[in-house]
Amino acid sequence: MNEKLNYERIIIGIDPGTNVMGYGILGVNKKNLELIAMGVIQLSKFDDHYMRLHRIYERVTGLIAQYLPDEMALEAPFFGKNVQSMLKLGRAQGVAMAAALNRDIPIAEYEPRKIKMSITGNGAASKEQVAEMLRRTLNIPKEEMPEFLDATDGLAAAVCHYYESSKPLAEKGYKSWKDFIAKNPDKIKK
Amino acid sequence: MNEKLNYERIIIGIDPGTNVMGYGILGVNKKNLELIAMGVIQLSKFDDHYMRLHRIYERVTGLIAQYLPDEMALEAPFFGKNVQSMLKLGRAQGVAMAAALNRDIPIAEYEPRKIKMSITGNGAASKEQVAEMLRRTLNIPKEEMPEFLDATDGLAAAVCHYYESSKPLAEKGYKSWKDFIAKNPDKIKK
Repeated sequence: MNEKLNYERIIIGIDPGTNVMGYGILGVNKKNLELIAMGVIQLSKFDDHYMRLHRIYERVTGLIAQYLPDEMALEAPFFGKNVQSMLKLGRAQGVAMAAALNRDIPIAEYEPRKIKMSITGNGAASKEQVAEMLRRTLNIPKEEMPEFLDATDGLAAAVCHYYESSKPLAEKGYKSWKDFIAKNPDKIKK
Repeated sequence: MNEKLNYERIIIGIDPGTNVMGYGILGVNKKNLELIAMGVIQLSKFDDHYMRLHRIYERVTGLIAQYLPDEMALEAPFFGKNVQSMLKLGRAQGVAMAAALNRDIPIAEYEPRKIKMSITGNGAASKEQVAEMLRRTLNIPKEEMPEFLDATDGLAAAVCHYYESSKPLAEKGYKSWKDFIAKNPDKIKK
């Protein structure tokens, strides 16, 4: 299953929903971004809530085994309509995260607005605008673009994570490495 | 690690919280209920949210490997203070569920009120009352009772699941097997 891809860095981006889950696998070499794979996991065909969670866990585990990503980026809304839908969303995120934690893959999460801002420069951009910008950035032929925009949403999380993690420290609001370390004690290997 | 326990049925009960997670392992032989193990997983020592989720996943995976439960019962509140806390709770539940789903262990969930009702006959019973009733039902010596009531909350979910799943169909509101099948198409193996 392991495709042994030749990239300096592989990022798996996930947009976990309870009806459709989107994912994108991003390869980075020097500063070149390449699309490795993207797709959706259809969940609405399962009536059973646990079946859906199981499917998310299985598929994310499978994608990790196949593409061996170094990091996971998650699209994670912090606000929702109601507590019920947030609980369900939390569970979907939780099983996707468990698949990454199981392999010691670090997780980063970004709000939808932040992702749109990072990709298009506009936090209120439409899904179509995000998809089109990704298509140009990654040189994806038009005919290879997916039917469902949830796939590009997953990919967008991965690309956003690449941009954010490649920013100079100053842009992230850190004054120095010392400041970074002080604010991120968990990121330092002891 | 596998203790190869001699029970007809082993149920793992989980009360997943983001600060403390409680668990109880219940053994059933004929109609005898026995406490196999109970405890808490302290999470508040970890500042990092992902570390907490990782710890939950790891420990629940470890408990499943050790005790080989047939079923998982979860204490699952359906209402919370706000969407933020419900998202966090959903994630904690999600990683615990992933550990079960990974081993094809069926999951049942019960609201706190339902669990209290099932154990004590009073849906508004205190944690202490639930713990005392469990102590008597399972013949647990007083000195073996845990310091933290989150452990008995986990155990309570397991005992509640045993009671609920042992009820005759009529008590569950089904008129017949046909009615049960019609209302639970996912429980029928094809």
